[in-house]
Amino acid sequence: MSSPYPPIGPVVGVVGAGQLARMTQPPAIALGIELRVLANTAEESAARVIVDTRFGDYRKLADLREFALGCDVITFDHEHVPTEHIRELIADGHAVHPGPDALVHAQDKAVMRQRLTEIGAPCPPWARVSGPGDVEQFAAEHGWPVVLKAVRGGYDGRGVWVCRDAAQAEEAFAGGVPLMAEAFVPFERELAVLVARSPHGQGVSYPVVETVQQDGICVEVLAPAPLLDPEDAAQAQRIALKIAHELGVTGLLAVEMFETDRGLIVNELAMRPHNSGHWTIEGSGTSQFEQHLRAVLDLPLGAPTMTAPYAVMVNLLGGDDPDLFKRYEHVMAHDPGVKVHFYGKEVRPGRKIGHVTALGKDLDEVRARARHAAVYLTTGEYT
Amino acid sequence: MSSPYPPIGPVVGVVGAGQLARMTQPPAIALGIELRVLANTAEESAARVIVDTRFGDYRKLADLREFALGCDVITFDHEHVPTEHIRELIADGHAVHPGPDALVHAQDKAVMRQRLTEIGAPCPPWARVSGPGDVEQFAAEHGWPVVLKAVRGGYDGRGVWVCRDAAQAEEAFAGGVPLMAEAFVPFERELAVLVARSPHGQGVSYPVVETVQQDGICVEVLAPAPLLDPEDAAQAQRIALKIAHELGVTGLLAVEMFETDRGLIVNELAMRPHNSGHWTIEGSGTSQFEQHLRAVLDLPLGAPTMTAPYAVMVNLLGGDDPDLFKRYEHVMAHDPGVKVHFYGKEVRPGRKIGHVTALGKDLDEVRARARHAAVYLTTGEYT
Repeated sequence: MSSPYPPIGPVVGVVGAGQLARMTQPPAIALGIELRVLANTAEESAARVIVDTRFGDYRKLADLREFALGCDVITFDHEHVPTEHIRELIADGHAVHPGPDALVHAQDKAVMRQRLTEIGAPCPPWARVSGPGDVEQFAAEHGWPVVLKAVRGGYDGRGVWVCRDAAQAEEAFAGGVPLMAEAFVPFERELAVLVARSPHGQGVSYPVVETVQQDGICVEVLAPAPLLDPEDAAQAQRIALKIAHELGVTGLLAVEMFETDRGLIVNELAMRPHNSGHWTIEGSGTSQFEQHLRAVLDLPLGAPTMTAPYAVMVNLLGGDDPDLFKRYEHVMAHDPGVKVHFYGKEVRPGRKIGHVTALGKDLDEVRARARHAAVYLTTGEYT
Repeated sequence: MSSPYPPIGPVVGVVGAGQLARMTQPPAIALGIELRVLANTAEESAARVIVDTRFGDYRKLADLREFALGCDVITFDHEHVPTEHIRELIADGHAVHPGPDALVHAQDKAVMRQRLTEIGAPCPPWARVSGPGDVEQFAAEHGWPVVLKAVRGGYDGRGVWVCRDAAQAEEAFAGGVPLMAEAFVPFERELAVLVARSPHGQGVSYPVVETVQQDGICVEVLAPAPLLDPEDAAQAQRIALKIAHELGVTGLLAVEMFETDRGLIVNELAMRPHNSGHWTIEGSGTSQFEQHLRAVLDLPLGAPTMTAPYAVMVNLLGGDDPDLFKRYEHVMAHDPGVKVHFYGKEVRPGRKIGHVTALGKDLDEVRARARHAAVYLTTGEYT
């Protein structure tokens, strides 16, 4: 539905109406920025909380064109909008951030690896592969296992196959999607660096965080990454800012990295607010969602300083019981400082339906508090 | 317009759609609480950011009844809803917080003074007065000046007359509204204490703040009140919590006080989020708006601890130039830590259109930062 009133503030159009768009609404409200989202249905997470929700298909240029009318800038809740449509919007005179030449690196893993290799960002050995034969040849040089990844469309662990032999590689190709190969990286832990870059070239980096994954889904984020060597932290931030600059990213860039005994390796890129940055809502002077708005509007960026020595974010993954609210009572009584976020999504097993954040001085205690709240909210069990 | 989808979370109906309802939407989004507001027009501050905005007249029982259908609890953006209508809603089976027996103390200053006197809360000498003769009699006992206040409906300095003689008292009565008299209190400064109380009786108090008024309008809030004697601070909090308890307040209660050389004196009460608590959005672990939601839903209250040693909030009062946004650039570049809030209201001279908050360790510096941002945003001038 379109706005029933003329906008007072700048209008930011977000393509997609998931929880990232939803969590962008609070800082938009604070700053008087008018958020508009392109949703599929009125039940989507952001559609429930944004007055100016429009409906349409992000894969259709006509829908995007209609959505863009009256927006001061267009940005994204996800990375699936075809770059050729983005080029058309820009040709129509719209500001779109991130732009297509940057965004393609978050859409196409082979293009990303090619470019990162060119600019000297640390990558695992990799190759474009068109069949099991190519994978065997890659393995002959780099050893098994070989990680095969869908060049496009992978998400939360989907589209990734860790193959221990040629037979498993053959299975991965059975899906018919274009794949690329990467050497398996034995890593100590996973890190993520969130940076913002604005069209006029300002860049800021949040502290490096540790992300904990289960079955390819991020379940926990520790900010800052505990016991990380300060030189490694600085290098991780330099790498992320360099990627943002070289790729011309505008808005947020999340760089997922492996910490290995031979240094840092870039794993994945995302060009939008990112699960590894949800802790910034309470844990930083500027939340990633406010930062993204500032960046795409080409406003000066906010301070990324932390509000407490440690912040721990734990995702809420849906369980069997759809009624989270009855569990608020224990969690809030048990810990008056824990912050609960629920995305207004129907609870389904394994689905990301919210997160909790705890802040404090003692990492172990902060982590235990966040975990207690998350486990109780999703299962009703005490930890 | 009504929601196009069945709610997932509890539904909180807020009567009124000003900036207080607007600033309640961010924590409602975070907690998955569905906010509904009763607005006069779609241009109002909260109507612009709340999907489930209904239109109607808060003075009409029929409109309130229709609004209340499907709400889990009803609360208020202002204190002007007739208590007899609230009683009807409760008779219909609705939960309303604060309830009419508490709310009347924020609506009727004579009822408030009567009750505060009964419970031993510190008040100035006061009397119900029905004409200039009563005022002269009051002045004979307590001296001039006498402060005459409209018993109902005063706001932001309106409805208050400081009378130095009988002639001025006569002028005040010319308006025809019922008045009460209070002795003029020579105060050193104004303080405010914000407390929350839930239906099950839990109470919390935020730190005591200093409020700075100009022409009866709050322009600046310093949290905590600098150089306040810790015993006075504790006593102020005890007074506010006692008032909340004795009056049966559910939700937030702001108690405005005078600091005098003979101790603290209660000036005014408000039963809703309050201008003196806007600093809590960034300055406290639980914002007053989240706290109000928790309280009216009878959820355990959040920690009111501060996130920095000092927080200073400065109101933005509209100037001649309606375009605030072009001034964001300087303010954000000058101070990446200052937080800007704009209420999405048309800019009119003297109107509260937003506020800024700064946090830090050094009060003078924090205050200078907040003032610089506020002055520049509203006038374009440097301080």
